[in-house]
Amino acid sequence: MNIWAEYIEENKTRFLNEMLDLLRIPSISTKSIHKKDMIRCAEMVKQRLLDSGCDKAEILITDGHPAVYGERIIDASKPTVLVYGHYDVQPPEPLELWENDPFEPEIRDGKIFARGSSDDKGQFYMQLKAMETLVKTDSMTTNIKFLIEGEEEIGSPNLAKTIISNKELLKADVILISDSTILSMDTPSLDTGIRGISYIEVEVTGPNRDLHSGVYGGAVANPITILAKMIASCHDENSRIIIPGFYDDVLIASKEERELINKAPYSEKEYMSDLGVQMLWREKGYTTFESTGIRPTLDINGIWGGYTGEGAKTVLPSKAYAKISARLVPNQSSKKITEKLLNYFKSIAPKSVTVKTKLLVTGEPYLTSIKSKGYKAASKALQTTFGKPAIPVRSGGSNPICSILHKELGIDIIFLGFGLNNDNLHSPNEKFNIDCYHKGIETIPYFHKYFAEE
Amino acid sequence: MNIWAEYIEENKTRFLNEMLDLLRIPSISTKSIHKKDMIRCAEMVKQRLLDSGCDKAEILITDGHPAVYGERIIDASKPTVLVYGHYDVQPPEPLELWENDPFEPEIRDGKIFARGSSDDKGQFYMQLKAMETLVKTDSMTTNIKFLIEGEEEIGSPNLAKTIISNKELLKADVILISDSTILSMDTPSLDTGIRGISYIEVEVTGPNRDLHSGVYGGAVANPITILAKMIASCHDENSRIIIPGFYDDVLIASKEERELINKAPYSEKEYMSDLGVQMLWREKGYTTFESTGIRPTLDINGIWGGYTGEGAKTVLPSKAYAKISARLVPNQSSKKITEKLLNYFKSIAPKSVTVKTKLLVTGEPYLTSIKSKGYKAASKALQTTFGKPAIPVRSGGSNPICSILHKELGIDIIFLGFGLNNDNLHSPNEKFNIDCYHKGIETIPYFHKYFAEE
Repeated sequence: MNIWAEYIEENKTRFLNEMLDLLRIPSISTKSIHKKDMIRCAEMVKQRLLDSGCDKAEILITDGHPAVYGERIIDASKPTVLVYGHYDVQPPEPLELWENDPFEPEIRDGKIFARGSSDDKGQFYMQLKAMETLVKTDSMTTNIKFLIEGEEEIGSPNLAKTIISNKELLKADVILISDSTILSMDTPSLDTGIRGISYIEVEVTGPNRDLHSGVYGGAVANPITILAKMIASCHDENSRIIIPGFYDDVLIASKEERELINKAPYSEKEYMSDLGVQMLWREKGYTTFESTGIRPTLDINGIWGGYTGEGAKTVLPSKAYAKISARLVPNQSSKKITEKLLNYFKSIAPKSVTVKTKLLVTGEPYLTSIKSKGYKAASKALQTTFGKPAIPVRSGGSNPICSILHKELGIDIIFLGFGLNNDNLHSPNEKFNIDCYHKGIETIPYFHKYFAEE
Repeated sequence: MNIWAEYIEENKTRFLNEMLDLLRIPSISTKSIHKKDMIRCAEMVKQRLLDSGCDKAEILITDGHPAVYGERIIDASKPTVLVYGHYDVQPPEPLELWENDPFEPEIRDGKIFARGSSDDKGQFYMQLKAMETLVKTDSMTTNIKFLIEGEEEIGSPNLAKTIISNKELLKADVILISDSTILSMDTPSLDTGIRGISYIEVEVTGPNRDLHSGVYGGAVANPITILAKMIASCHDENSRIIIPGFYDDVLIASKEERELINKAPYSEKEYMSDLGVQMLWREKGYTTFESTGIRPTLDINGIWGGYTGEGAKTVLPSKAYAKISARLVPNQSSKKITEKLLNYFKSIAPKSVTVKTKLLVTGEPYLTSIKSKGYKAASKALQTTFGKPAIPVRSGGSNPICSILHKELGIDIIFLGFGLNNDNLHSPNEKFNIDCYHKGIETIPYFHKYFAEE
């Protein structure tokens, strides 16, 4: 056992407990009621950066929730790694499906169950503990900077401004993010890109007030029926999106690329059985990994209208709503797609209703080169700790800030995450395997080492 | 001014205040949390029946919320009128659209704003005050019985049993119900029938848990999308219901009947402007009154699934739900239609989801003969107090208990209601015009008089 592994072994209980403290704060960025929790969480992150070895840490005020900056500079001539992460989390609802309080972490079967355990508190905290390991074993070979934000789950609406006005402070040679997954503890993998996103809300209004469905039903358009017809007209029978021009700018993946993607271990039977479904629902002509990685998609994330309580109420509601998001692939522009979405829902509405649309989140897709210095260092680090090569994969998720970080700082982004696909991100019973957590803390020091050596 | 009008004039403030007391009890039958309020409300109804002149009143225990019985028997040889009404109300949600607390009645502009003011507390209470007027002016010519139930808004699931086991107690010559509307205070009208209802709930399950839409979107069926496609496939482009066999048993209205229906005063412009819509949404080939009266309809009363809170959440939900109800016309059977609905939603579901259905409410349509003794008495009563003849109309609403009352007691039902179409039944800001309330109390004594004379 080397000096890093020894230090991690000695401190692993404390490393775990420190992370649990962070999980206890309900830092839900989308809900204004949690504003104070957000500040409390940012303060804790700042203190933990200092405790973990940063020689400077500060709260960066934004127009929304604050971001936290920290740094340990060992030598201006050495390469600098900027770690990005986020301390905000998704709302925990539906609460009744959680087996424990989402903000009172519980360890069951080697897994930490709590909102934010994998996305992203547990993962960015690996980066702090990796730095501590380097500091305490006196083996830092890079300067390390941290940018831990509080608005990732709402599309980072204010971070671009912070990045632009702090370009000098954030100057680095590579960006390192732990907010993604590996295929399994037996199959290390490295994300080579993320999808972009266009997330909108649609409001359909029929009559100006809720009506008695017996008195007016049959004469007045029901906004739920109309909204359902609008949603139904987004996909054809091959699960292909039929919003005009939706696929126009999609960069068609090459035969080689598709072959590479489909090399990752995959059992359709296991995939379906894990999800409890009898049949998949994919764009015709594409495999699962292609559908979730290199193809754009459209999902309804929420719908509501009329009476949704216990029992029956014979109402013809005034309004119905849906939250709708598209995932975008390289060469698609979130601005263009957002416009197409907003226009589509307005244009297909019959005159019997009125439609209002609202933009909630946009973000561009981002691709990392497997030939970059950072990618090679990450790949080598995984090879070292897992004992086998990492498979390059395309992630289906989105992080709007990536394309901005890349554009403004002019450097590559490396996705060195240690979550698993069954971590229940954004779902009840989110978890992070303790094994994965420690494996991350063990692997990240090698990234710094190899990146400095390249 | 005759003796009745004089008595009503003298007591009108008390008549109003007594009704307001009843409106203050949140007797929401569909929500189990209001069980105690239901009992409190039933007790108040019982006491008020006694106070208004009944010589006997009792609570009838059922398997659900209790019903209340009361009677004043003057002479076994005289005809007996059985008054039916309901003290339960619809849920008040959405609360934010109310201008006052739905259970703290407010009088504005001659209207009583409160949940239940028109449907049906204010209306059945007219019957009590009409009886009081007859009693106090010593002019009773009929025996009067009351059956005021507490489960009308949830489809009267337990009343049939109560009726069957109390046939002797409820024995009467006609059933009189004030739970409907007149066209306006200038245009008296009489309902000749009500539609039946089949009300179901559909649950669509995609994956066995909520998923991250970025990681799984594009590969796994989204239950909201599927549910929307299912709902969209219920109506064709002519707003005709395309569920197989839906119209099979519909009794086609004759040319004469349709002509009569369309004689009621109607301005499409005013109708649309009152509702704030630019275009109606009717089955092709039918007018508004035909669509809401003699044709069956299908409405989505509620829909929900995924994230419905503030901001964005990128979830691919596990489940989506809809509440769906059909209104039925004479000769349609709610049992048959319910089966067709349940089967339809199960049969059109793709294999990528599972569908569960649940029956919430059923009720048969009911038609009254305009040649019956009761109809004639009601028509004459309206002629007397309004000074013009009442127009026969078909109501679009439903009351499942009507066909049961008719079948079990073997007598006609007369719908002598005094609400208005803009009373916001089942909606926020439900109201009942004080004018209408007093007009009802004034008219009902004439019904008893003319019915006894026929």
